Amino acid sequence: MASPPSVEPGQETLPLFFGVDVGGTNIKMGMVDDLGNTLVYEKIPTNETEGPQRYMERTTEVLQAMCEKVGRPMSDIAAIGLATPGTMDIEGGILLEPHNLPNSYNFPIRDCLSKLTGRPVVYANDANAAAFGEYWLGSGKEFRSMVLLTLGTGVGGGIIVDDLLIDGEHSHGGELGHIIIDFSENARTIPTGQRGHLEAYASGTAIIKRTHEALAGDLQKESSLHARIDAGEQLSPLMVAQEADKGDTLSLHIVMETARYLGIGIVSLMHTIDPGAVILGGAINFGGHEEPLGRKFLERVRQEVKSRAFPVPAAQTVIDFARLGGNAGYLGAAGKARVVSHRDSLNS
Amino acid sequence: MASPPSVEPGQETLPLFFGVDVGGTNIKMGMVDDLGNTLVYEKIPTNETEGPQRYMERTTEVLQAMCEKVGRPMSDIAAIGLATPGTMDIEGGILLEPHNLPNSYNFPIRDCLSKLTGRPVVYANDANAAAFGEYWLGSGKEFRSMVLLTLGTGVGGGIIVDDLLIDGEHSHGGELGHIIIDFSENARTIPTGQRGHLEAYASGTAIIKRTHEALAGDLQKESSLHARIDAGEQLSPLMVAQEADKGDTLSLHIVMETARYLGIGIVSLMHTIDPGAVILGGAINFGGHEEPLGRKFLERVRQEVKSRAFPVPAAQTVIDFARLGGNAGYLGAAGKARVVSHRDSLNS
Repeated sequence: MASPPSVEPGQETLPLFFGVDVGGTNIKMGMVDDLGNTLVYEKIPTNETEGPQRYMERTTEVLQAMCEKVGRPMSDIAAIGLATPGTMDIEGGILLEPHNLPNSYNFPIRDCLSKLTGRPVVYANDANAAAFGEYWLGSGKEFRSMVLLTLGTGVGGGIIVDDLLIDGEHSHGGELGHIIIDFSENARTIPTGQRGHLEAYASGTAIIKRTHEALAGDLQKESSLHARIDAGEQLSPLMVAQEADKGDTLSLHIVMETARYLGIGIVSLMHTIDPGAVILGGAINFGGHEEPLGRKFLERVRQEVKSRAFPVPAAQTVIDFARLGGNAGYLGAAGKARVVSHRDSLNS
Repeated sequence: MASPPSVEPGQETLPLFFGVDVGGTNIKMGMVDDLGNTLVYEKIPTNETEGPQRYMERTTEVLQAMCEKVGRPMSDIAAIGLATPGTMDIEGGILLEPHNLPNSYNFPIRDCLSKLTGRPVVYANDANAAAFGEYWLGSGKEFRSMVLLTLGTGVGGGIIVDDLLIDGEHSHGGELGHIIIDFSENARTIPTGQRGHLEAYASGTAIIKRTHEALAGDLQKESSLHARIDAGEQLSPLMVAQEADKGDTLSLHIVMETARYLGIGIVSLMHTIDPGAVILGGAINFGGHEEPLGRKFLERVRQEVKSRAFPVPAAQTVIDFARLGGNAGYLGAAGKARVVSHRDSLNS
């Protein structure tokens, strides 16, 4: 994870925004100026069992402390961007049934934070916010449009075209793990039972499942994964990456196969959105540009895309890793608040 | 095809636009006001062999005659929307290598029309323009976002979110026949050789191919298609529709299977764009709402979507037939010109 960019001197008079990224474990917050500089950054535990009213109150206390720290009143904050996991009603500002915030069902979180702070709050899905962060300040900053695919326990993502974050008309925009790549009867399933979704093939969960299957195959007796599992370790995407890195054929096959599945999904997105760049984010990146395995993974994604997409987008669409790591969410939440805020003043 | 809406009295002072839809056979043109009323409509043969300079000159003559007819000078036209088939460079305004305009390769068609008319010209892909037409004035008019899927010789489409037509960063936005629905080695191919694209399953071409395959199957000896083919008729999607309508099991199976494939593609679009509506257009609609077969086809599409999509979009996304028929293209071209024109005056 990259450390947040620090403030440049002499930019204290730019419009200010807060970005707040609520997760199951932590709430990340930053005061961000109009150029994307983070002036203050803070992370607090969510302590979700206390309920959403309480963790929003603690968030507000931190935001107020940030204002004091930079010597600007809360009224100087043009808008706050708030990102949460779904399910949610983005237009209504309501948490519906977020799986990793089980005590926060049907909570009007946007208006709660707006009331506590006295500032307008712009609401976003956390994966979409991360996409907006990469678009504004990360790997997508050179492009007019961008798609982010995040690879973690599941597969998520977000889409931005000309500063417009595609939230969706029912708050389901950019659910990119759920495009269908295999319609057949025996396609893999996701936990909710639907068949053939990208997430059933390329997520962390799918990597573990596919690896277990491969390890049960007769030809895979010599994989170095066996020894670690026999020693009591739990099979994980990280373990697969480590053994692939050391030359284990089965593990490398799993990593390359994951790249292939992602490439297939990316082609559908290229023929739909035709973005300037497709960016790969999330916790699982096999070391990214820093590691030979990560670079090999990225090359395999690109190769699959080239073999299946139309010539022009195949040649011109940039496919690369994300840059902002875990900071993308709060930065993108601030970025969405900034764009909405600028648009509103344009129209008023 | 619906006839163009006629002008309402008393609206002569609204801003005016031209929409021009260039096809391989005809060029359709309309003078359209700010509310979407068509004041004058005309269709001329493209005569593409004469070359693009000549057919744009003839187009300009018709536009000038339209101006005279309504007693408004060309300078009163706020902007002209121009739609053509691809491949194209939308930002550069250039026809690249359009398959059905073989004498128009690498032609700067946008600036040509702008020079001839003296008016600003906004360029669009024809399928994307048709989508914008349905969004502005047809089946999508109640929604903030819409996806159009067109079923003809191929499968095409267009995407609009909050008045923004997604052209794509390389003029390949909304190439919806080319999302991948089957990644397997033995997936069907499109003429360019790529595997598993929706168009390889659900286009008119694919319908003919799948029907021929089914007719070669041992169990299909009793299909009523055999007699018509034996009598020298050429197998076509229309013939399949007619026999399905009369109760031919094999033909009905082909139609329902087509609906199923489209439904699979639509789920990917719902989990990407999450539009308010997905609209089915193009020449092949099995009679649409007017015919029992069309209604059965639409129901099968909806059923496939419900079984594969997330509950909220599955329940709330409207799936319906297009309304504007062959007029969608020129209306949408005018509509895109209108939106760009309004946006430019907002920013100036």
